Amino acid sequence: VSSAIIRFVANPLLALALGAIVHAAPLPLMPLPSKVTLQGGKLAIDGGFSVRITGYTDAKLQLAVERLIARVGRQTGIPINAGPRAILTIDCRAAAPEYPELSEDESYQLDVAAESARLSAPTTTGALRGIETFLELIAPDADSFSVPALRIEDHPRFPWRGLSLDVARHWMPVPVIERNLDAMAAVKLNVLHWHLSDDQGFRVESKLFPKLQQLGSDGNFYTQAEIRHIVAYAAARGIRVVPEFDVPTHATSWFVGYPELASAPGPYAIERKWGIFEPLMDPSREQVFTFLDAFFGEMVALFPDRYFHIGGDELVDTQWKQNAAIQAFAAEKAFRTSTELHAYFNQRIQALLQKHGKQMIGWDEVLQPGIGTSAVIQSWRGQKALADAVRQGYRGILSFGYYLDHLQTASFHYQIDPLGNEAASLEGDQAARVLGGEACMWTEYVTEETVDSRIWPRLAAIAERLWSPADTRDIGSMYQRLAAVSRWLSWTGVQHRSNYPEMLQRLAGGSSPALLRLADVLEPQGIDERQAARQYTSRVALNRLVDAVRPESESVRGLEQDVARLVSNPGDHSREVSQVRLTFTEWSVNADRLRPLISSKFLLREASSLSEDLSKIGNIGLRSLQYLESGERPPTDWLLQQKRELDRMEQPRAEVVLAAVRPVRTLLASFSNQPARARASRDRVK
Amino acid sequence: VSSAIIRFVANPLLALALGAIVHAAPLPLMPLPSKVTLQGGKLAIDGGFSVRITGYTDAKLQLAVERLIARVGRQTGIPINAGPRAILTIDCRAAAPEYPELSEDESYQLDVAAESARLSAPTTTGALRGIETFLELIAPDADSFSVPALRIEDHPRFPWRGLSLDVARHWMPVPVIERNLDAMAAVKLNVLHWHLSDDQGFRVESKLFPKLQQLGSDGNFYTQAEIRHIVAYAAARGIRVVPEFDVPTHATSWFVGYPELASAPGPYAIERKWGIFEPLMDPSREQVFTFLDAFFGEMVALFPDRYFHIGGDELVDTQWKQNAAIQAFAAEKAFRTSTELHAYFNQRIQALLQKHGKQMIGWDEVLQPGIGTSAVIQSWRGQKALADAVRQGYRGILSFGYYLDHLQTASFHYQIDPLGNEAASLEGDQAARVLGGEACMWTEYVTEETVDSRIWPRLAAIAERLWSPADTRDIGSMYQRLAAVSRWLSWTGVQHRSNYPEMLQRLAGGSSPALLRLADVLEPQGIDERQAARQYTSRVALNRLVDAVRPESESVRGLEQDVARLVSNPGDHSREVSQVRLTFTEWSVNADRLRPLISSKFLLREASSLSEDLSKIGNIGLRSLQYLESGERPPTDWLLQQKRELDRMEQPRAEVVLAAVRPVRTLLASFSNQPARARASRDRVK
Repeated sequence: VSSAIIRFVANPLLALALGAIVHAAPLPLMPLPSKVTLQGGKLAIDGGFSVRITGYTDAKLQLAVERLIARVGRQTGIPINAGPRAILTIDCRAAAPEYPELSEDESYQLDVAAESARLSAPTTTGALRGIETFLELIAPDADSFSVPALRIEDHPRFPWRGLSLDVARHWMPVPVIERNLDAMAAVKLNVLHWHLSDDQGFRVESKLFPKLQQLGSDGNFYTQAEIRHIVAYAAARGIRVVPEFDVPTHATSWFVGYPELASAPGPYAIERKWGIFEPLMDPSREQVFTFLDAFFGEMVALFPDRYFHIGGDELVDTQWKQNAAIQAFAAEKAFRTSTELHAYFNQRIQALLQKHGKQMIGWDEVLQPGIGTSAVIQSWRGQKALADAVRQGYRGILSFGYYLDHLQTASFHYQIDPLGNEAASLEGDQAARVLGGEACMWTEYVTEETVDSRIWPRLAAIAERLWSPADTRDIGSMYQRLAAVSRWLSWTGVQHRSNYPEMLQRLAGGSSPALLRLADVLEPQGIDERQAARQYTSRVALNRLVDAVRPESESVRGLEQDVARLVSNPGDHSREVSQVRLTFTEWSVNADRLRPLISSKFLLREASSLSEDLSKIGNIGLRSLQYLESGERPPTDWLLQQKRELDRMEQPRAEVVLAAVRPVRTLLASFSNQPARARASRDRVK
Repeated sequence: VSSAIIRFVANPLLALALGAIVHAAPLPLMPLPSKVTLQGGKLAIDGGFSVRITGYTDAKLQLAVERLIARVGRQTGIPINAGPRAILTIDCRAAAPEYPELSEDESYQLDVAAESARLSAPTTTGALRGIETFLELIAPDADSFSVPALRIEDHPRFPWRGLSLDVARHWMPVPVIERNLDAMAAVKLNVLHWHLSDDQGFRVESKLFPKLQQLGSDGNFYTQAEIRHIVAYAAARGIRVVPEFDVPTHATSWFVGYPELASAPGPYAIERKWGIFEPLMDPSREQVFTFLDAFFGEMVALFPDRYFHIGGDELVDTQWKQNAAIQAFAAEKAFRTSTELHAYFNQRIQALLQKHGKQMIGWDEVLQPGIGTSAVIQSWRGQKALADAVRQGYRGILSFGYYLDHLQTASFHYQIDPLGNEAASLEGDQAARVLGGEACMWTEYVTEETVDSRIWPRLAAIAERLWSPADTRDIGSMYQRLAAVSRWLSWTGVQHRSNYPEMLQRLAGGSSPALLRLADVLEPQGIDERQAARQYTSRVALNRLVDAVRPESESVRGLEQDVARLVSNPGDHSREVSQVRLTFTEWSVNADRLRPLISSKFLLREASSLSEDLSKIGNIGLRSLQYLESGERPPTDWLLQQKRELDRMEQPRAEVVLAAVRPVRTLLASFSNQPARARASRDRVK
């Protein structure tokens, strides 16, 4: 509602975003609260920081306060020894449900004054959300660490705000899950959708059917104790855990130990390749449902969430077509298509889950005749499929546009709205059945080492889309806050920033400023381009430049902004000119410095033409600056030739894109008054 | 013996040190093995890496091999799926003792050929050492990750190579201990001397005397289960754990719960200040020995090591002097001095420990008449005290010169030898009773956040002193290898490199390249200067620039080397000239860029004059380069004035030193042919 209030802040104390003095920096909050009223002044945070709980309290809230105090200590580096006076008072009116529930009240109100702050919430869940807002506001000013005096009234727009994390394609150990839950809580996400089985691995210990993990996981699975630990860890942070066991598709790993579940005799081995595979469960055999009944019964004891995800996507019916018994079964049931057979399977599964007290959730494909409207549809197809589902009485969440593995920009994801496009016309109950959305982190091209940098910080922008008011859409503000939030997230333990220098050092066999300079202006390609580039399997190392570099170059973004200011009024921006010239100069000499390393380190060999091109871009940029400063228009031939060069250099190589092209393209475009191609080409829909 | 062999290596594949092509880079090993013979060629390391154990095996070796394979995966980023052919064969002849013992055989031999490698060792302990050597040799070359073909025969020079870690002044949680044990194992250290109690905290759970941790630790103590875990964790890595419970001094934290142990009535509170304090145990009361007897009995069940450290240093006898009963007791025993009373106390303690099967170790001060020669003396006073002790029949270890909290250079520590100075004349049995040494990490000015960067990488240089042949003394080689080893150590999990950018971001409230540029040329002062600078207590935050910056500036070292090459022959070093000029230029404009941040962030305020001075140094450097290149001798007045400026700028401020002065001083000195003062002033003895 009032997000305009906070976009322009006159108080320099609030210029916290990037460590530089910025005249109108937004508060470094993501997601933006629904209402913020700045009140002037600030609350100092020092070693005497203390928290008093008034009103309702319980162990969950007390543990959250302990974590809050530890985080204040970590963020400020100050040993906290509670003083006599309460700095933050937390006032809840009632308990939250012991395990988080869909659509529970997550609202809170935060009042910060010069002497103390007060966080009030209907339940402890609201307090969890407000605690993160309070932590995010702590920043150093000219006198101390402080929080600006303000009132925040906040509640989420959507009740289902999730991350779907694939732990089957690449194994993700427990600490990866823990730190990402902490970061999810920091941006007020409330669902971990845990993709626990797929062709490439079965990741949960079953005591009833131990061959699932014994033969289907290469030893990489969560014990039941670990599952309980993670579920409790998430619940303590107000995060639900929705398990996904993909059936009848994506199930090769089940069949290694239990080939009798499959529609073809086997034997089966863990799939090492990426893609869509034929192995399918056999819907004609009653024993398959008996197995699943018992298995679900075992799993529901581990996963208290009311929702249970059955996948159900990307069915290839070859095995069904080639199995005479299945064909006979289908004929007997008068099914005309494999889709009808799939619908029958899903109906049986839905009934089993209902028996176990669970509501089914599945991908678009599970929406078939006969599926009860208690099912939730997760749409990867888009808002039209989502709107169709809710018009039929189902509830739905959007994942289309939120696929982190495509390595789109944060702004691309940010502009996708669960109630956008064809869903924009939904109203009343129908709109309310759009529960929210989930980002998806598929891990074909992501390891435990790189997963944090593929999730963060971009997921924070999606979290804002799902939490903040629909009219929170200013991309400039988003990026300014994202830079600050990305650094803040490091205090939760996610390693999206720290893994980068380590991976570069591995490539170089040591430190190399020249490699860092090149890597800083590269952006990796996503899953589509990588699977087209070469034959990947789970055995192929993800230790190359494409795996180390970050999805969106912060330094190129900064340079683009400098260049944009420059070309708008070249005479008025001497600071930008000197900064841009320094950068172009560094680029222009970088290839010389990097060449010996590239020729002596096998993993850098593929960076050779990128490195040479960066120096060429630096030279084009330096020449362009000369034209700009002299006011002389460059010759048309020269301009055309440079643009052809940039077109060529923008072509991906080594599965990365040379983002450094973009600011120079903007500079060249200023000479011919043609619109720059830069960002548009980066934000194509996948 | 043959360390000369490996200092000059013609094969460019071995130029691994700094990611740059260096013509004669040493193998990036620290400690250097006693004998290395390069054989040409290399062994490629890829996803098919596998290990076969021949000869003796047990669970300890198998777990070590599992860790080895995980580390190969981490270092290379390659998923390891053992191929059919063994790449590394490990051949041990016998078990090591289940718990590591002093003076056990740690030798190993490593033979690497083009097709496979073979690690052989008398016991599994040698295999642990050789595994780390193998890991340290893995580096990327032009074709793959590889290990050079070579033969290494290696064994330690001293049997006691330790780190003494103070967890009393600042609490160090279990993960800090674990990751530092991993890094210690990487550089072949074999003793963790765990300083578990002091005036500021009692850090172990006692079930017999629970008020020790309940009232003496602020809740920060290791449970007995955690102690057992750490002892086993260390033992698995071939590291002994020697507990230290300091008596009768440094014991305030004991007296909070048990004032009856003290020589004055109390009550006592946990000490919050740093220094030497009066509270002392009462040697006149038999109940004190009864208490200690029971307490030691409880502790020896937790700590299997044969040695038990009783501290015993820095005794202030005020409480004894003021206590009439103690004076009467002393008179009755005919003790003429407090030192004789202390000696009586120590004799009783030694007898108690012997009863519990332990040999006593203590600081210099415990060497008093009547102490049995089974005691080990840890000398902080120097090689003379050490030599005196061994001449009297005691065994001893050196800590003098290895105090990491003084933040000396690696080269300073490197030049200190347990058998140097007054101990150089020891021979035979006497020399053999010098068991080795221990670095000391006292933590008055060190937190769990900064401890890794205060230990590493400098401890690796001390580890080399204690392991490698006495004639391994080339400082240039040491620094070149240290840079590589510092990066390699990150793979063990120590955070000495990753905590730096995070702490700078905290100071700046975000990223700031200008702050990074300043911080990179600052060096923190050590404990002496800090305690003189202001009133510190355990409640004072260690979150300032002095805490963030690294003990020894790598970038200043690099610049000093460039400048040294320059002044030796200015005409022949165009690459160095351009690099040095770029750096001076960056410095010269840095203050302008940093000024807004310094004025708006309270924790940076104290950096203001340092920042201004850095730009002045940059300008002096640029002008000097002009003189150098022109061949013109600068005016004497100008020279004198600049040297006065550098003298002033070299004065510490904000408890840091502007190391950037050093290369410019070298440059200026070249004009007057006077010796540069640079390094000498840094390496003063503390």
